[in-house]
Amino acid sequence: MEKKIITISREFGSGGRTIGRKVAEKLGIPFYDKELVDQIAVESGFAPKFIEEHGEHAPTKSLFSYAFAPQGIPGIMNGLSTADFLWNIQCSVILQLADQGPCVIVGRNADYILKDREDALHVYTHADMSFRAERIVKKYGESDKSPEARLNEKDKRRRVNYQHYTGRTWGQSQNYDLCLDTGKLGIDLCADIICGIVEQSKK
Amino acid sequence: MEKKIITISREFGSGGRTIGRKVAEKLGIPFYDKELVDQIAVESGFAPKFIEEHGEHAPTKSLFSYAFAPQGIPGIMNGLSTADFLWNIQCSVILQLADQGPCVIVGRNADYILKDREDALHVYTHADMSFRAERIVKKYGESDKSPEARLNEKDKRRRVNYQHYTGRTWGQSQNYDLCLDTGKLGIDLCADIICGIVEQSKK
Repeated sequence: MEKKIITISREFGSGGRTIGRKVAEKLGIPFYDKELVDQIAVESGFAPKFIEEHGEHAPTKSLFSYAFAPQGIPGIMNGLSTADFLWNIQCSVILQLADQGPCVIVGRNADYILKDREDALHVYTHADMSFRAERIVKKYGESDKSPEARLNEKDKRRRVNYQHYTGRTWGQSQNYDLCLDTGKLGIDLCADIICGIVEQSKK
Repeated sequence: MEKKIITISREFGSGGRTIGRKVAEKLGIPFYDKELVDQIAVESGFAPKFIEEHGEHAPTKSLFSYAFAPQGIPGIMNGLSTADFLWNIQCSVILQLADQGPCVIVGRNADYILKDREDALHVYTHADMSFRAERIVKKYGESDKSPEARLNEKDKRRRVNYQHYTGRTWGQSQNYDLCLDTGKLGIDLCADIICGIVEQSKK
């Protein structure tokens, strides 16, 4: 079956977003990442910055998080935690985006949310610590924390969030159609492999 | 760096061996699977059938297994269990094969044994239960056990063996450069992707 929807899940710093953008450009289809965040924000009333920071993180029941929620949300949220409320909106937005037509969706557990779509190709990108550390320093600059600590922290949050909402193990190959070591294979080749699979699926 | 050695680890019935053979044929390089078993047998003095059955299985300290060992082995084995003894020979044979030149090696934890070779491409193949069940019945025929039970049993043995000797989690994407869902992508496309990566690495 023709693969029209490409989801990319990624270890922080492995280049999954860059690959997603390249694939979307090559195939001439929409790319959803920050754009997706914005759309979720519009639907939820949350600030985009808040969603960006919490959408892929460990679920929390912290009351403090309500302080960032838009007015009236405690009622709309119907007793759900901020994270659960965001998850529901995230699912609904991602299902809608996929229904609209071919696209690339990066992050946000889209592989799980779209697991039943036969026209979806689910990709996971990873790389070793040194490749990713060098990459995040180049991309996001230095910070007080070591690059390794930043990677571990971000990976842990994504892993916990994924496990909590999907019941699956983050990075387990069986969850994806294709897993790529971007450090070993290179960003461009990874994008080419994905495009090749999509092209092949049309035949 | 040019990828010369391709290791393929696979869920039972996912077609990893078939893919390995196709890749070896396309690239015109040796393919080691049963041939590898024979070579290990020659070095160890064990019967090929015994090695085939125990080489990827859960380690055991069963005294019964010594009954199948060649004469004089208890001395040569130097107090090691049959599985540990086989593991040592397996490592040595695989390291030697890789030193001899380009090749495809299927199974036998070769991804771990050759993890430090930069000219190696490590591939893992998996597929869902129904794809694999249909495949093993076609390939190996029916048996008293259901195909699902046979798959679970074989997977479990490989998983336990892998974890025991490598300390890694079987099927965790980070252990491999490339993981492929053969049911979703198809056997031929998987072989093409691997050959494409090897060709690309020569440029």
